[in-house]
Amino acid sequence: MIVLGIDPGLSLTGWGVVEALCRDKITLIQYGCIKTIPLAPLIERLQIVHNDLQSIINKYNPEVVAIEELFFLKAAKSVASVGQSRGAIALTVSMNKIPLFEYNPRCVKIALTGYGSADKHQMQQMVKTFLKLKEIPKPDDAADALAMAICHINTIKW
Amino acid sequence: MIVLGIDPGLSLTGWGVVEALCRDKITLIQYGCIKTIPLAPLIERLQIVHNDLQSIINKYNPEVVAIEELFFLKAAKSVASVGQSRGAIALTVSMNKIPLFEYNPRCVKIALTGYGSADKHQMQQMVKTFLKLKEIPKPDDAADALAMAICHINTIKW
Repeated sequence: MIVLGIDPGLSLTGWGVVEALCRDKITLIQYGCIKTIPLAPLIERLQIVHNDLQSIINKYNPEVVAIEELFFLKAAKSVASVGQSRGAIALTVSMNKIPLFEYNPRCVKIALTGYGSADKHQMQQMVKTFLKLKEIPKPDDAADALAMAICHINTIKW
Repeated sequence: MIVLGIDPGLSLTGWGVVEALCRDKITLIQYGCIKTIPLAPLIERLQIVHNDLQSIINKYNPEVVAIEELFFLKAAKSVASVGQSRGAIALTVSMNKIPLFEYNPRCVKIALTGYGSADKHQMQQMVKTFLKLKEIPKPDDAADALAMAICHINTIKW
Protein backbone atom coordinates (compact mmCIF):
# COMPACT_ATOMS: atom_id res chain seq x y z
CA MET A 1 0.00 0.00 0.00
CA ILE A 2 1.36 3.40 -1.02
CA VAL A 3 0.42 6.18 1.40
CA LEU A 4 0.90 9.92 0.89
CA GLY A 5 1.13 11.87 4.16
CA ILE A 6 0.57 15.63 4.09
CA ASP A 7 1.31 18.38 6.61
CA PRO A 8 -0.66 21.28 5.08
CA GLY A 9 0.34 24.93 5.09
CA LEU A 10 0.06 27.89 2.76
CA SER A 11 3.78 28.83 2.70
CA LEU A 12 5.08 25.30 3.20
CA THR A 13 3.24 21.99 2.72
CA GLY A 14 5.24 18.93 3.77
CA TRP A 15 4.62 15.67 1.92
CA GLY A 16 5.96 12.14 2.23
CA VAL A 17 5.29 8.93 0.32
CA VAL A 18 5.86 5.52 1.92
CA GLU A 19 5.08 1.98 0.87
CA ALA A 20 3.93 -0.66 3.36
CA LEU A 21 3.77 -4.39 2.66
CA CYS A 22 2.51 -4.91 6.20
CA ARG A 23 2.57 -2.94 9.46
CA ASP A 24 6.23 -3.74 10.07
CA LYS A 25 7.55 -3.36 6.54
CA ILE A 26 7.47 0.33 5.72
CA THR A 27 9.77 1.80 3.08
CA LEU A 28 10.38 5.45 2.32
CA ILE A 29 9.72 6.32 -1.31
CA GLN A 30 10.17 10.11 -1.34
CA TYR A 31 9.46 13.27 0.63
CA GLY A 32 9.65 17.01 0.11
CA CYS A 33 7.91 20.36 0.49
CA ILE A 34 5.60 22.45 -1.67
CA LYS A 35 6.55 26.10 -1.26
CA THR A 36 4.59 29.23 -2.17
CA ILE A 37 5.67 32.86 -2.03
CA PRO A 38 3.99 34.70 0.88
CA LEU A 39 3.52 37.91 -1.13
CA ALA A 40 1.88 36.18 -4.12
CA PRO A 41 -1.92 36.41 -4.51
CA LEU A 42 -3.90 33.68 -2.71
CA ILE A 43 -5.25 32.29 -5.97
CA GLU A 44 -1.71 31.76 -7.35
CA ARG A 45 -0.52 30.13 -4.13
CA LEU A 46 -3.43 27.67 -4.05
CA GLN A 47 -2.89 26.90 -7.74
CA ILE A 48 0.78 26.05 -6.99
CA VAL A 49 -0.26 23.79 -4.08
CA HIS A 50 -2.76 22.07 -6.39
CA ASN A 51 -0.36 21.70 -9.35
CA ASP A 52 2.51 20.36 -7.25
CA LEU A 53 0.24 17.96 -5.36
CA GLN A 54 -1.23 16.76 -8.66
CA SER A 55 2.31 16.05 -9.95
CA ILE A 56 3.12 14.09 -6.75
CA ILE A 57 -0.11 12.06 -7.11
CA ASN A 58 0.62 11.38 -10.80
CA LYS A 59 4.19 10.29 -10.04
CA TYR A 60 3.66 8.09 -6.95
CA ASN A 61 0.03 7.01 -7.44
CA PRO A 62 -0.88 6.79 -3.71
CA GLU A 63 -3.86 4.61 -2.73
CA VAL A 64 -4.54 6.68 0.39
CA VAL A 65 -3.81 10.21 1.63
CA ALA A 66 -3.35 10.93 5.36
CA ILE A 67 -3.59 14.50 6.65
CA GLU A 68 -3.58 16.14 10.08
CA GLU A 69 -6.90 17.38 11.48
CA LEU A 70 -7.08 21.14 11.77
CA PHE A 71 -5.74 22.21 15.13
CA PHE A 72 -7.89 24.98 16.64
CA LEU A 73 -5.56 26.08 19.39
CA LYS A 74 -3.33 27.96 16.97
CA ALA A 75 -3.92 31.66 16.18
CA ALA A 76 -6.94 32.33 13.97
CA LYS A 77 -4.70 33.83 11.27
CA SER A 78 -2.63 30.64 11.11
CA VAL A 79 -5.81 28.50 11.08
CA ALA A 80 -7.09 30.63 8.18
CA SER A 81 -3.93 30.11 6.10
CA VAL A 82 -3.67 26.41 6.82
CA GLY A 83 -7.44 26.03 6.31
CA GLN A 84 -7.38 27.52 2.83
CA SER A 85 -4.43 25.37 1.77
CA ARG A 86 -6.09 22.33 3.34
CA GLY A 87 -9.30 23.04 1.38
CA ALA A 88 -7.36 23.13 -1.90
CA ILE A 89 -5.48 19.93 -0.93
CA ALA A 90 -8.64 18.03 0.06
CA LEU A 91 -10.37 19.09 -3.16
CA THR A 92 -7.37 17.92 -5.21
CA VAL A 93 -7.39 14.54 -3.42
CA SER A 94 -11.16 14.27 -3.98
CA MET A 95 -10.77 15.05 -7.71
CA ASN A 96 -8.34 12.11 -7.93
CA LYS A 97 -10.88 9.87 -6.14
CA ILE A 98 -8.34 8.91 -3.47
CA PRO A 99 -9.63 8.29 0.08
CA LEU A 100 -8.53 10.95 2.59
CA PHE A 101 -7.97 10.02 6.25
CA GLU A 102 -7.71 12.70 8.92
CA TYR A 103 -5.81 12.15 12.17
CA ASN A 104 -5.60 14.46 15.16
CA PRO A 105 -2.12 15.29 16.50
CA ARG A 106 -2.59 13.16 19.63
CA CYS A 107 -3.51 10.07 17.57
CA VAL A 108 -0.42 10.57 15.41
CA LYS A 109 1.80 10.77 18.50
CA ILE A 110 0.26 7.62 20.02
CA ALA A 111 0.54 5.73 16.71
CA LEU A 112 4.26 6.52 16.45
CA THR A 113 5.53 6.63 20.03
CA GLY A 114 2.74 5.07 22.13
CA TYR A 115 2.64 8.37 24.04
CA GLY A 116 0.09 11.15 23.30
CA SER A 117 2.29 13.97 24.58
CA ALA A 118 5.48 13.05 22.70
CA ASP A 119 7.56 16.08 21.65
CA LYS A 120 8.71 16.98 18.15
CA HIS A 121 12.13 15.40 18.58
CA GLN A 122 10.73 12.09 19.83
CA MET A 123 8.35 12.02 16.85
CA GLN A 124 11.14 12.72 14.37
CA GLN A 125 13.31 10.00 15.92
CA MET A 126 10.47 7.51 15.47
CA VAL A 127 10.03 8.55 11.81
CA LYS A 128 13.76 7.87 11.34
CA THR A 129 13.45 4.48 13.10
CA PHE A 130 10.29 3.32 11.28
CA LEU A 131 11.78 4.18 7.88
CA LYS A 132 15.30 2.93 8.78
CA LEU A 133 16.89 6.25 7.78
CA LYS A 134 20.35 7.53 8.69
CA GLU A 135 19.14 11.08 9.31
CA ILE A 136 15.92 12.77 10.42
CA PRO A 137 14.14 14.01 7.26
CA LYS A 138 14.27 17.79 6.83
CA PRO A 139 12.50 20.20 6.97
CA ASP A 140 10.19 19.48 9.93
CA ASP A 141 7.13 19.75 7.67
CA ALA A 142 8.33 16.79 5.58
CA ALA A 143 9.05 14.74 8.74
CA ASP A 144 5.54 15.59 10.02
CA ALA A 145 4.05 14.46 6.71
CA LEU A 146 5.92 11.14 6.93
CA ALA A 147 4.66 10.74 10.52
CA MET A 148 1.11 11.14 9.17
CA ALA A 149 1.66 8.38 6.58
CA ILE A 150 3.19 6.04 9.22
CA CYS A 151 0.28 6.82 11.56
CA HIS A 152 -2.17 5.64 8.90
CA ILE A 153 -0.24 2.39 8.38
CA ASN A 154 -0.10 1.75 12.14
CA THR A 155 -3.78 2.58 12.64
CA ILE A 156 -5.57 0.52 9.96
CA LYS A 157 -6.36 -3.17 10.24
CA TRP A 158 -3.99 -5.42 8.27
CA MET B 1 -19.47 43.04 -16.96
CA ILE B 2 -20.82 39.94 -15.23
CA VAL B 3 -19.68 39.64 -11.60
CA LEU B 4 -20.08 36.64 -9.32
CA GLY B 5 -20.08 37.53 -5.61
CA ILE B 6 -19.43 34.79 -3.07
CA ASP B 7 -19.95 34.59 0.70
CA PRO B 8 -18.01 31.42 1.52
CA GLY B 9 -18.92 28.84 4.15
CA LEU B 10 -18.71 25.09 4.54
CA SER B 11 -22.40 24.46 5.37
CA LEU B 12 -23.74 27.38 3.32
CA THR B 13 -22.01 29.35 0.57
CA GLY B 14 -24.02 32.31 -0.71
CA TRP B 15 -23.60 33.34 -4.34
CA GLY B 16 -25.01 36.11 -6.51
CA VAL B 17 -24.52 37.03 -10.17
CA VAL B 18 -25.08 40.59 -11.38
CA GLU B 19 -24.46 42.36 -14.66
CA ALA B 20 -23.22 45.95 -14.78
CA LEU B 21 -23.19 48.13 -17.91
CA CYS B 22 -21.75 50.95 -15.81
CA ARG B 23 -21.58 51.82 -12.11
CA ASP B 24 -25.23 52.90 -12.04
CA LYS B 25 -26.73 50.20 -14.21
CA ILE B 26 -26.60 46.98 -12.23
CA THR B 27 -29.02 44.14 -12.94
CA LEU B 28 -29.57 41.01 -10.91
CA ILE B 29 -29.10 37.82 -12.90
CA GLN B 30 -29.47 35.12 -10.24
CA TYR B 31 -28.58 34.24 -6.68
CA GLY B 32 -28.68 31.22 -4.40
CA CYS B 33 -26.84 29.05 -1.90
CA ILE B 34 -24.60 26.01 -2.09
CA LYS B 35 -25.45 23.70 0.81
CA THR B 36 -23.47 20.80 2.23
CA ILE B 37 -24.46 18.33 4.93
CA PRO B 38 -22.57 19.01 8.20
CA LEU B 39 -22.14 15.30 8.99
CA ALA B 40 -20.69 14.40 5.55
CA PRO B 41 -16.92 13.88 5.23
CA LEU B 42 -14.91 17.05 4.46
CA ILE B 43 -13.78 15.72 1.10
CA GLU B 44 -17.41 15.23 -0.05
CA ARG B 45 -18.46 18.66 1.18
CA LEU B 46 -15.61 20.40 -0.66
CA GLN B 47 -16.38 18.39 -3.81
CA ILE B 48 -20.02 19.60 -3.65
CA VAL B 49 -18.86 23.23 -3.21
CA HIS B 50 -16.54 22.77 -6.21
CA ASN B 51 -19.12 21.02 -8.43
CA ASP B 52 -21.90 23.52 -7.71
CA LEU B 53 -19.57 26.51 -8.16
CA GLN B 54 -18.33 25.02 -11.45
CA SER B 55 -21.96 24.70 -12.65
CA ILE B 56 -22.63 28.36 -11.70
CA ILE B 57 -19.48 29.47 -13.57
CA ASN B 58 -20.44 27.38 -16.63
CA LYS B 59 -23.99 28.78 -16.65
CA TYR B 60 -23.32 32.48 -16.01
CA ASN B 61 -19.76 32.86 -17.32
CA PRO B 62 -18.63 35.59 -14.87
CA GLU B 63 -15.66 37.77 -15.89
CA VAL B 64 -14.76 38.45 -12.26
CA VAL B 65 -15.33 36.83 -8.86
CA ALA B 66 -15.56 38.94 -5.68
CA ILE B 67 -15.15 37.29 -2.27
CA GLU B 68 -14.94 38.52 1.32
CA GLU B 69 -11.52 38.55 2.98
CA LEU B 70 -11.20 36.07 5.82
CA PHE B 71 -12.31 37.70 9.05
CA PHE B 72 -10.02 36.71 11.93
CA LEU B 73 -12.15 37.91 14.81
CA LYS B 74 -14.46 34.93 14.54
CA ALA B 75 -13.84 31.71 16.50
CA ALA B 76 -10.92 29.60 15.22
CA LYS B 77 -13.30 26.70 14.47
CA SER B 78 -15.44 28.92 12.26
CA VAL B 79 -12.32 30.36 10.56
CA ALA B 80 -11.17 26.77 9.90
CA SER B 81 -14.46 25.76 8.24
CA VAL B 82 -14.76 28.92 6.18
CA GLY B 83 -11.04 28.75 5.33
CA GLN B 84 -11.26 25.23 3.89
CA SER B 85 -14.32 26.09 1.81
CA ARG B 86 -12.65 29.33 0.70
CA GLY B 87 -9.54 27.38 -0.38
CA ALA B 88 -11.67 25.06 -2.54
CA ILE B 89 -13.57 28.07 -3.97
CA ALA B 90 -10.40 30.06 -4.78
CA LEU B 91 -8.83 26.99 -6.44
CA THR B 92 -11.98 26.46 -8.55
CA VAL B 93 -11.93 30.13 -9.63
CA SER B 94 -8.21 29.83 -10.44
CA MET B 95 -8.80 26.68 -12.53
CA ASN B 96 -11.29 28.68 -14.61
CA LYS B 97 -8.73 31.49 -15.04
CA ILE B 98 -11.13 34.09 -13.66
CA PRO B 99 -9.66 37.00 -11.65
CA LEU B 100 -10.53 36.88 -7.93
CA PHE B 101 -10.91 40.11 -5.94
CA GLU B 102 -10.97 40.07 -2.14
CA TYR B 103 -12.70 42.79 -0.11
CA ASN B 104 -12.69 43.24 3.63
CA PRO B 105 -16.06 43.66 5.38
CA ARG B 106 -15.47 47.35 6.09
CA CYS B 107 -14.74 48.10 2.41
CA VAL B 108 -17.94 46.30 1.39
CA LYS B 109 -19.96 48.37 3.87
CA ILE B 110 -18.42 51.63 2.65
CA ALA B 111 -18.94 50.68 -1.01
CA LEU B 112 -22.65 50.02 -0.44
CA THR B 113 -23.71 52.48 2.27
CA GLY B 114 -20.85 55.00 2.50
CA TYR B 115 -20.54 53.96 6.16
CA GLY B 116 -17.98 51.41 7.44
CA SER B 117 -20.05 50.36 10.46
CA ALA B 118 -23.36 49.76 8.65
CA ASP B 119 -25.41 46.92 10.15
CA LYS B 120 -26.72 43.82 8.34
CA HIS B 121 -30.17 45.34 7.75
CA GLN B 122 -28.77 48.55 6.24
CA MET B 123 -26.57 46.46 3.93
CA GLN B 124 -29.47 44.28 2.82
CA GLN B 125 -31.62 47.35 2.15
CA MET B 126 -28.87 48.74 -0.08
CA VAL B 127 -28.60 45.44 -1.98
CA LYS B 128 -32.38 45.67 -2.59
CA THR B 129 -32.07 49.33 -3.72
CA PHE B 130 -29.04 48.81 -6.01
CA LEU B 131 -30.68 45.85 -7.73
CA LYS B 132 -34.19 47.45 -7.78
CA LEU B 133 -35.75 44.42 -6.08
CA LYS B 134 -39.13 44.22 -4.33
CA GLU B 135 -37.78 42.09 -1.47
CA ILE B 136 -34.47 41.59 0.31
CA PRO B 137 -32.83 38.44 -1.15
CA LYS B 138 -32.90 35.45 1.19
CA PRO B 139 -31.06 33.80 2.88
CA ASP B 140 -28.61 36.32 4.35
CA ASP B 141 -25.67 34.48 2.75
CA ALA B 142 -27.06 35.17 -0.74
CA ALA B 143 -27.66 38.86 0.12
CA ASP B 144 -24.06 39.06 1.43
CA ALA B 145 -22.78 37.54 -1.82
CA LEU B 146 -24.72 40.09 -3.88
CA ALA B 147 -23.27 42.86 -1.67
CA MET B 148 -19.80 41.56 -2.56
CA ALA B 149 -20.56 41.72 -6.30
CA ILE B 150 -21.99 45.27 -5.98
CA CYS B 151 -18.93 46.29 -3.92
CA HIS B 152 -16.66 45.20 -6.79
CA ILE B 153 -18.70 47.21 -9.33
CA ASN B 154 -18.65 50.31 -7.09
CA THR B 155 -14.93 49.97 -6.37
CA ILE B 156 -13.34 49.52 -9.80
CA LYS B 157 -12.64 52.34 -12.25
CA TRP B 158 -15.16 52.60 -15.10
